[in-house]
Amino acid sequence: MQKNNINNDTICALATATGGAIGIIRLSGNRSIEIVNKIFSKNISNAKPNSLHYGEIIRKYNDCIDIIDDVVISIYHTPHSYTGEDSVEISCHGSSYILNKVLELLIDNGCRMALPGEYTQRAFMNGKMDLSQAEAVSDLISSTNQATHRIAMSQLRGCFSSELAQLREKLLKLTSLLELELDFSDHEDLEFADRTELLSIANAIYEQICKLINSFKTGKALKQGIPVAIVGKTNVGKSTLLNQLLKDERAIVSNIHGTTRDVIEDTIDINGVIFRFIDTAGIRNTEDEIEKLGIERTYKKIKEASIIIWLIDERPSNYDINEILELTKGKQLIVVQNKIDLNPNIENETWSCPKVFISAKHNKNIDLLEKHIYKAANIPVIKENNIIVTNTRHYEALKRAKTNINRVIEGLNTNNSGDLIAEDLRLALADLAEITGGQITTQETLSNIFSNFCIGK
Amino acid sequence: MQKNNINNDTICALATATGGAIGIIRLSGNRSIEIVNKIFSKNISNAKPNSLHYGEIIRKYNDCIDIIDDVVISIYHTPHSYTGEDSVEISCHGSSYILNKVLELLIDNGCRMALPGEYTQRAFMNGKMDLSQAEAVSDLISSTNQATHRIAMSQLRGCFSSELAQLREKLLKLTSLLELELDFSDHEDLEFADRTELLSIANAIYEQICKLINSFKTGKALKQGIPVAIVGKTNVGKSTLLNQLLKDERAIVSNIHGTTRDVIEDTIDINGVIFRFIDTAGIRNTEDEIEKLGIERTYKKIKEASIIIWLIDERPSNYDINEILELTKGKQLIVVQNKIDLNPNIENETWSCPKVFISAKHNKNIDLLEKHIYKAANIPVIKENNIIVTNTRHYEALKRAKTNINRVIEGLNTNNSGDLIAEDLRLALADLAEITGGQITTQETLSNIFSNFCIGK
Repeated sequence: MQKNNINNDTICALATATGGAIGIIRLSGNRSIEIVNKIFSKNISNAKPNSLHYGEIIRKYNDCIDIIDDVVISIYHTPHSYTGEDSVEISCHGSSYILNKVLELLIDNGCRMALPGEYTQRAFMNGKMDLSQAEAVSDLISSTNQATHRIAMSQLRGCFSSELAQLREKLLKLTSLLELELDFSDHEDLEFADRTELLSIANAIYEQICKLINSFKTGKALKQGIPVAIVGKTNVGKSTLLNQLLKDERAIVSNIHGTTRDVIEDTIDINGVIFRFIDTAGIRNTEDEIEKLGIERTYKKIKEASIIIWLIDERPSNYDINEILELTKGKQLIVVQNKIDLNPNIENETWSCPKVFISAKHNKNIDLLEKHIYKAANIPVIKENNIIVTNTRHYEALKRAKTNINRVIEGLNTNNSGDLIAEDLRLALADLAEITGGQITTQETLSNIFSNFCIGK
Repeated sequence: MQKNNINNDTICALATATGGAIGIIRLSGNRSIEIVNKIFSKNISNAKPNSLHYGEIIRKYNDCIDIIDDVVISIYHTPHSYTGEDSVEISCHGSSYILNKVLELLIDNGCRMALPGEYTQRAFMNGKMDLSQAEAVSDLISSTNQATHRIAMSQLRGCFSSELAQLREKLLKLTSLLELELDFSDHEDLEFADRTELLSIANAIYEQICKLINSFKTGKALKQGIPVAIVGKTNVGKSTLLNQLLKDERAIVSNIHGTTRDVIEDTIDINGVIFRFIDTAGIRNTEDEIEKLGIERTYKKIKEASIIIWLIDERPSNYDINEILELTKGKQLIVVQNKIDLNPNIENETWSCPKVFISAKHNKNIDLLEKHIYKAANIPVIKENNIIVTNTRHYEALKRAKTNINRVIEGLNTNNSGDLIAEDLRLALADLAEITGGQITTQETLSNIFSNFCIGK
């Protein structure tokens, strides 16, 4: 358990969004049950853990009694709760008036409003989860597709943590071998110990860390959505194509009647991966100065994209082809011929990127195009337990660990003294420990992490 | 228990709004536990009622397992649940992706999405509440202030129902006395029975119904907010005053850090009653035709208001005074002199309405004005158990009952035959039964009531 500025107050907050049929208020802290008992119609001081109780939230004033709501109360006893502390959840009717009144009443009776992320922070402090798992809670809540959901879930369930624990094991083994070598060299006056085993362990650690670092590119793309630009001359059907892609998406979403979903403007979900469409103006050669500016902006936007869809409806000139190939260097280019109902197929060109023939207007081959988009993203299939780094804080700690391990390897190769190498090992261990919060975590780090949480989590 | 088109399917729906830390999915129906058992990591088929269970929601496909979420499950057994049926609530992380996945999974395993208000409709069908209580659930969820909250809570807790039950008792007593009279007159050949007692009961019923009918004016005003218009010449400070009144309100609202409230544009809460400000243009004599149209609209809007605040900053002409008095006939007029820091108090005028001296700009005496506004509304203090009719359906049924009781009284006064009077009594009983749904309620009525509910309630 760690100390920080979070005190032992019993805290309360609304854990649900307002506007539903039900609203949940959550308390945590050793006075949770005592405080709720003061405002509840039944005595819950001896209530069993993990039990539900129906009754009324009551405000007493003067000789009057005001019934605030009919509620169901959930009782959790330490350590078997989300935070690890005694906890109570009050399930109210979802009126903002009622929820505010209940919160007021709780505060009047000794609760304090929770800070953003304070429940999860307490869970961390009480050893219910490590720091990377705590961060996964926030990622899980904001996950909008299968890929980000799986990564967050895997992280929450400790897959990343156990990968880090393995690394730590290896680093500790390296450290103890190094200590053995030091002892050995002291006593036996041997100048050079055999460092083959040490090097092989260090190299394995290095590779494992590099793999994690490399996964960040995918992780970031999945988290933020993969940027796609549709470019092409004016009137080639860019908006029609975009609308068709988005329409498809909405149809999937609305399959479940009565559920709402936070609609993210201009994104589509293909096989659980989010693709984000960048708005671009048409490209064409122009002498008009103002139009030229617009095209410059388009070129800039194209640079942000990973995937470029070049939409054409006639045979492009060699000049255009060369320009596009130049523009999309290092990116995935998909050439899409629109209006196949009007124009005959354009004869094969010499470029080597995928070509798709569609009719945006008549929704023809849009599914095929989606397959090509998904393929162009080159995203590995994310399975349960896949470890993909999505968090910049983790990425940076891993990069520091990589640098330190690199110095360990160099030290071993150049027959540096064991003491110096051991110092680099200690630094690498500290870098990894930062991710899980396994050693004293600075207040600044904690604040940075938890202030981004919503209140009530 | 009543029959209608709601079948015995096990239903599911999201019961909270999306966007919070937690989202609750609710199931109801005799397969609730069986269906959740298929997708939950622990066996809950023998779980105790009113118990909580931590575990995972799991999707199995081919040989793979997908963990959708870490959840807490609440188990309710018939008849001790909201609907009276077996019920399960699943408390998930509040990601819309997760919530949709869990709902999909429930539907794949035999649930059906709930219709709007279907949980409450089932509660009604299973005798957990009568129809007026079911309607109170919806009112409670949409309550935004103390008054509407208290009225809805009182109705939910059956105060209105027991008032109606009392009325029904009296009507039944009247019916049985009438039957006694009929028997008596058959056997004894008496022409006229003594109808004093019958009349006195009928009159008591009539008065009780009138009282309920009269409460509707208050109920409607409280539910919709009491309309207030601020009128006055241009530049007299109308917007400044309105902003000052609204600013006060927001300060109260934001007292509890981290809670959100559905902000209703241009309303303020004074002592738990909502006042709704009607937007009006300035009033002044003008020859400009277009401006005249604007002023006409203002006059029309003034007609909608119950309370008129006439804002002045100089001594008004007798012409103006007469015009305002004419305009505000039958309404509550408050004369408010603004800019007291600039202008000396205007000498007393002859009109008899309340006068308040304020500075809107310097927030002076705004609290005093609020007191006057509240007083002008003439709202009785709403206490727990107060019965105030707020529902148009109830109001109309009561009016029909009043007509029928009136005919009973006339019949008694004019010595109508007992048979005819008994028929009117039966009609009055049916009118009241309509409110609580005590007799067969038509499908149309049920649809009208529950289709206005949100899904998940």
